[in-house]
Amino acid sequence: VTAATVSGTPSRAELEPRLQRLRDALEEGGLDAALLVSSASVYHLSGTAQNAQLIVPVRGEPLLLVRRDLERARAESALGAVEPLVSLRGLEPALRALALGPGSSIGLELDVLPAADYLRYAALLPDRRLADAMPAVWAARAPKSPWELEHVRAACAQGSAAMHALPGLVRVGMPEADLLSELAYVMRAHGHEGTVRFRGLNSEFWFGQVLAGASAAVPGPTETPLAGPGLSASQGRGPSRRPLAAGDAVVVDVTGLADGYVSDQTRTVFLGEPDARLVSAYETCRAILDACEQLLVPGTPASALYERGLEVATEAGLDAHYMGFGPDRIRFVGHAIGLELNEAPALARGVETPLVEGAVIAVEPKLLFPGLGAVGVENSYVVRAGGPERLTLAGDDPIRVEP
Amino acid sequence: VTAATVSGTPSRAELEPRLQRLRDALEEGGLDAALLVSSASVYHLSGTAQNAQLIVPVRGEPLLLVRRDLERARAESALGAVEPLVSLRGLEPALRALALGPGSSIGLELDVLPAADYLRYAALLPDRRLADAMPAVWAARAPKSPWELEHVRAACAQGSAAMHALPGLVRVGMPEADLLSELAYVMRAHGHEGTVRFRGLNSEFWFGQVLAGASAAVPGPTETPLAGPGLSASQGRGPSRRPLAAGDAVVVDVTGLADGYVSDQTRTVFLGEPDARLVSAYETCRAILDACEQLLVPGTPASALYERGLEVATEAGLDAHYMGFGPDRIRFVGHAIGLELNEAPALARGVETPLVEGAVIAVEPKLLFPGLGAVGVENSYVVRAGGPERLTLAGDDPIRVEP
Repeated sequence: VTAATVSGTPSRAELEPRLQRLRDALEEGGLDAALLVSSASVYHLSGTAQNAQLIVPVRGEPLLLVRRDLERARAESALGAVEPLVSLRGLEPALRALALGPGSSIGLELDVLPAADYLRYAALLPDRRLADAMPAVWAARAPKSPWELEHVRAACAQGSAAMHALPGLVRVGMPEADLLSELAYVMRAHGHEGTVRFRGLNSEFWFGQVLAGASAAVPGPTETPLAGPGLSASQGRGPSRRPLAAGDAVVVDVTGLADGYVSDQTRTVFLGEPDARLVSAYETCRAILDACEQLLVPGTPASALYERGLEVATEAGLDAHYMGFGPDRIRFVGHAIGLELNEAPALARGVETPLVEGAVIAVEPKLLFPGLGAVGVENSYVVRAGGPERLTLAGDDPIRVEP
Repeated sequence: VTAATVSGTPSRAELEPRLQRLRDALEEGGLDAALLVSSASVYHLSGTAQNAQLIVPVRGEPLLLVRRDLERARAESALGAVEPLVSLRGLEPALRALALGPGSSIGLELDVLPAADYLRYAALLPDRRLADAMPAVWAARAPKSPWELEHVRAACAQGSAAMHALPGLVRVGMPEADLLSELAYVMRAHGHEGTVRFRGLNSEFWFGQVLAGASAAVPGPTETPLAGPGLSASQGRGPSRRPLAAGDAVVVDVTGLADGYVSDQTRTVFLGEPDARLVSAYETCRAILDACEQLLVPGTPASALYERGLEVATEAGLDAHYMGFGPDRIRFVGHAIGLELNEAPALARGVETPLVEGAVIAVEPKLLFPGLGAVGVENSYVVRAGGPERLTLAGDDPIRVEP
């Protein structure tokens, strides 16, 4: 395997601005270095997803310490220093050689780093301060380069293929889980890589959601507007074996995955004529999306989109149905996407992080009616000073299918 | 949603022996309670995979504290105490009420609990000793009940369906990734739930592996015998777009998933006539499997299967090819399965844990030849005093397909 035989290997020129954003944010946070281990972070900053630990000092060159496979990591990564890591004991001398000895502050991915590993670091790296690298990691990830956007566009094309196939696939009597299987099959045929990265413990995820009729309003364990019944209690979320029925609103939320980058898109199918409240609520979702689009410019605090959407929902008398129902409401209306489906910032209450030029943001207004169903629409956008560039290009009228 | 509307909800009688094994192992380890959060552990011991924290004291009743969705957790779980958890601050008084106040020892899932959560617990639960619950969790999980085995059998039936369809799907020129898509589609049509749980950071997994010819011997980031090139550097593992070719040995490793329980099975397709070394190595894989089967009885140390397989490989002159090649060899020949694909014990060098009656074990001898390919065979078994019961029933001759 050489770099030439695999796609998705960023050049050093592509990596450098990412590394510099990380360094700047680390320094601003009072840290001397980051030590990163999640595959998304390691890939983002080194160009390889092999099993490795990436040290990025605020000053000096990054060092990629590879457990396996070293040869592949060397072929794939444009970094200059790619060395073997035989044992975690190798970390201490490596840090010391980078002037990260006792007294230095090392940022870790505390949101996903297992506690056992954290405790191991604490034991192996005496007299370092171990802190949270995630604010810096998200600062490095937020703006996407033209090279990255190409991959997001390829992922969006997979989503479009699914949406294009959708009207021909939907039929009364088909279990909602089977419709998701069909859409997954279509996206795989268009190059979908399978395992969308959803950061965090218990973030099981499979291509997206197909939730029809009352299923769509079933709350669940996830911090997402739609949870769904799932196929069994052991899963507890996602599509079920409930058959699609005439009069269903079918919410279809699919994620593409190309060269590690995701897309996120939702459309609603009207299978026949759903309840008038759902039909009208869909127009409110579009009004929320329109209102949010106005705010997708650099400098907008992420929370502003959630709050603006809530205003529009409230004007329509649907605030109790916005992003969940009643006490189950989720306080966000979207999120950044990239190498992970749930990148920061979330467009959530209290998140004041300003959007940056080049960020890719999914806005997904959804309205839920317990016992009746849900409707929603979602697009992914690039934040631009002149206004957002929309990446998910399928039309956002309801998809009407005769039962 | 009520318990009646979802499958996979274990009765209290089903849960009780699991809880008792956990309590016994906690006590043996000097712990007063476990506080569990991974969806697999919470589901195993409470019957719901909703977002919750499960406290199991050595003495007294378990308490399930639910973030969301409370109503579903109450409908699904047979536990008596299922209460809301509004904030993590609720944990301290809850523990105190269970006589787990200052001075008590609480076991956590240190292998997957994020460091940030660990630090939060440490701050919110002063004067408790926080220790590792995993030895007790694995002791609780190891023996599968007849009820659990029914679900494993259902998962095996999905794998059998894939293997049955395989000869009709394989064709020269098809990318190996596309063959895995086809097999995934077949398994979904047979009820596969999609997201196989593979415990640990960066354990991205999608249905299994299809690796053909030289691809099969490409090492990668995973602690598994077969890694594969993957579709891009951002994934770095798994099938690639390499087209199947006449003369390929195609290793097909698929996992079923029914009501949360997995199956694991590997077969090798000979697409025409592979290199004689591969054909002969396949017979060595079968000899290893036969030798390991003899050891699948209660009391065998897990490592004994790895070592026995190595002996057989060495007798055949293939020790350098056993479970990887040269320095890339993985020191195991299989693993327990259940609610996660990589349950303990691993059949690995140095793991002296004895197999127990009712454990479900996947044995997967594989032999790798760099530049040429790999072969392998794998079955899942129940450990029984009278000798193992094989769960993956498809014949294990090489599957011969004319190119």
